[in-house]
Amino acid sequence: MRATLMYAADDVRVEDVTDPKIQQPTDAVVRIVLSCVCGSDLWPYKSLEPTDAPRHMGHEFLGIVEDIGTEVHTLKPGDVVVAPFVWADNTCAYCREGLQTSCPQGGRWGVNGVDGGQGQAARVPFADGTLVKLPVAEDSELLPDLLTLSDVLSTGYHAARTAGVGRGDTVTVIGDGAVGLSGVISAKLLGAERIILMGRHRARTDLGRAFGATDVVPERGEQGIARVKELTGGEGTSKVLECVGLKDAIVQSFGVVRDGGTISRVGAPQFTDVPFGFGDFMRNITLTGGVAPARAYIEELMPHILDGSIRPGRVFDSTVGLEDIADGYRAMNDREALKVLVRP
Amino acid sequence: MRATLMYAADDVRVEDVTDPKIQQPTDAVVRIVLSCVCGSDLWPYKSLEPTDAPRHMGHEFLGIVEDIGTEVHTLKPGDVVVAPFVWADNTCAYCREGLQTSCPQGGRWGVNGVDGGQGQAARVPFADGTLVKLPVAEDSELLPDLLTLSDVLSTGYHAARTAGVGRGDTVTVIGDGAVGLSGVISAKLLGAERIILMGRHRARTDLGRAFGATDVVPERGEQGIARVKELTGGEGTSKVLECVGLKDAIVQSFGVVRDGGTISRVGAPQFTDVPFGFGDFMRNITLTGGVAPARAYIEELMPHILDGSIRPGRVFDSTVGLEDIADGYRAMNDREALKVLVRP
Repeated sequence: MRATLMYAADDVRVEDVTDPKIQQPTDAVVRIVLSCVCGSDLWPYKSLEPTDAPRHMGHEFLGIVEDIGTEVHTLKPGDVVVAPFVWADNTCAYCREGLQTSCPQGGRWGVNGVDGGQGQAARVPFADGTLVKLPVAEDSELLPDLLTLSDVLSTGYHAARTAGVGRGDTVTVIGDGAVGLSGVISAKLLGAERIILMGRHRARTDLGRAFGATDVVPERGEQGIARVKELTGGEGTSKVLECVGLKDAIVQSFGVVRDGGTISRVGAPQFTDVPFGFGDFMRNITLTGGVAPARAYIEELMPHILDGSIRPGRVFDSTVGLEDIADGYRAMNDREALKVLVRP
Repeated sequence: MRATLMYAADDVRVEDVTDPKIQQPTDAVVRIVLSCVCGSDLWPYKSLEPTDAPRHMGHEFLGIVEDIGTEVHTLKPGDVVVAPFVWADNTCAYCREGLQTSCPQGGRWGVNGVDGGQGQAARVPFADGTLVKLPVAEDSELLPDLLTLSDVLSTGYHAARTAGVGRGDTVTVIGDGAVGLSGVISAKLLGAERIILMGRHRARTDLGRAFGATDVVPERGEQGIARVKELTGGEGTSKVLECVGLKDAIVQSFGVVRDGGTISRVGAPQFTDVPFGFGDFMRNITLTGGVAPARAYIEELMPHILDGSIRPGRVFDSTVGLEDIADGYRAMNDREALKVLVRP
């Protein structure tokens, strides 16, 4: 089959790789119908050292079950399924607590002999635990929306949930990328009344407004902090969703969070130390969040997509065929595209 | 009156200062019956640069109301009262949320013309909001226990509450100082079944066992982390109370916390950056806590002292008269004393 391999920064190729087949009785093989490029794929796209052992890319996909192992009981060939961005047994203590990202038996796509998601097919370990059946047909118009369950919507939702967003809240969302916009959707879904979106890309913040942002703050740093405070009676907001992962964004989060408030960060931190010393200790700030256990949220979020009350697939503003995926990476990296769908 | 002034590291003096009197109609004047030295008083005791404007020391006290302003309605002369370690109006939005430490009208003892707590008396701003009446006599044997409501017990309780300790939990408490031991009391009060106390001072950890610690780990650093993991099936504990404030202790906290778990820190951080990057992001660790709004917990904790179910005053293992307070500082700094009572 064809799959996406990264050999170095700015060197993404589609090549022939071994066809996936059942290896463990708990495996399934899924033919991929829809995949996409993640903001996190851009980190290696910017920085990967040249390698002869290329990375198998992609961790967001949905598709059709083609084959199952003898111990797969909840799925059958022909089922339409979505995969969360880590696979997991979904039976251990961590999984039962909704922390599938810490499943001792689980792992990531594209490493240790597991396929990546940006290809024509994938072997799925612990298929019963990992995959979630979608009650739609292979040609449903909802597929792009449902694909967001795999990562980006679930990640935004993880931010909102771990920040404790609830009815009537005022929330600041930092970042107008696909995760930030998913944070806006999620905050609204959880009942937030006022959602301040910090971002400066007009097309994206316009989509954020369509998703439920009530205020947009294009300024950054001290100016942005001052603007959010001005909007909130000088206090900032009790809930802050940090959807970027850069140090400037976390510093900005501490600037806009109200005393006693919570910052939830879901952008993978590109830094090791958080400036979180005496001053913010005296303000009783909580820093939470982390990598999203998407699997935990899929059943909860899916009905809102199926009934049309949220349209998270609107974050996809560009589509490429698999053979052209390198152009999708380039477009996202150059900020020409917000998030790119890939049709194998 | 006589009061404690600090002129430099290791230079604590008791001197004559102006007698407190009512300045605002919401003030009260309290004759101090019992005070104490705080672990946080030792930071300037170790490091204060010599100054001609000495610090007025002390922020934990209980005593007898001597005088009240015209707008004080809930107190009268003769009442026995305890003061939390910050004063606050207790009516603003922050106070109503239980975050009196962020009260915009509130402040700290010993600065801006407000007396310190290590003296014979103190003017108390917003007396109705700040002070809590104690239903005991001036010579009650419970006074040392009740004094801990002012700071140390409330601080340990804040750690346990913000960590979300509940029935059946396993909790690690880092630090065998008076705050750590109060953390043990609090974790037990909230229903923790297993409490692992990390500390290496035998007399203190023995008191910790009396307070409810089920395991004591004297090792520190990597060895201590390995020991806690060994005690917890390799996983660590979901709740960690960091009751020290040094960088080694926070690093140790991240080492012993289970994936998805919460570290609550109540030791004032003596560092600016928290090592909290990609690895702990992938583990979904939460860092919470902060300076304790003691005022919020006094009514909740007091009944447990009055009925004898907790005896937090056992952290006081030494008593000095006010004139000898410098020796109390020295004894605590040299670790001869765990926590020193002061009788003016």
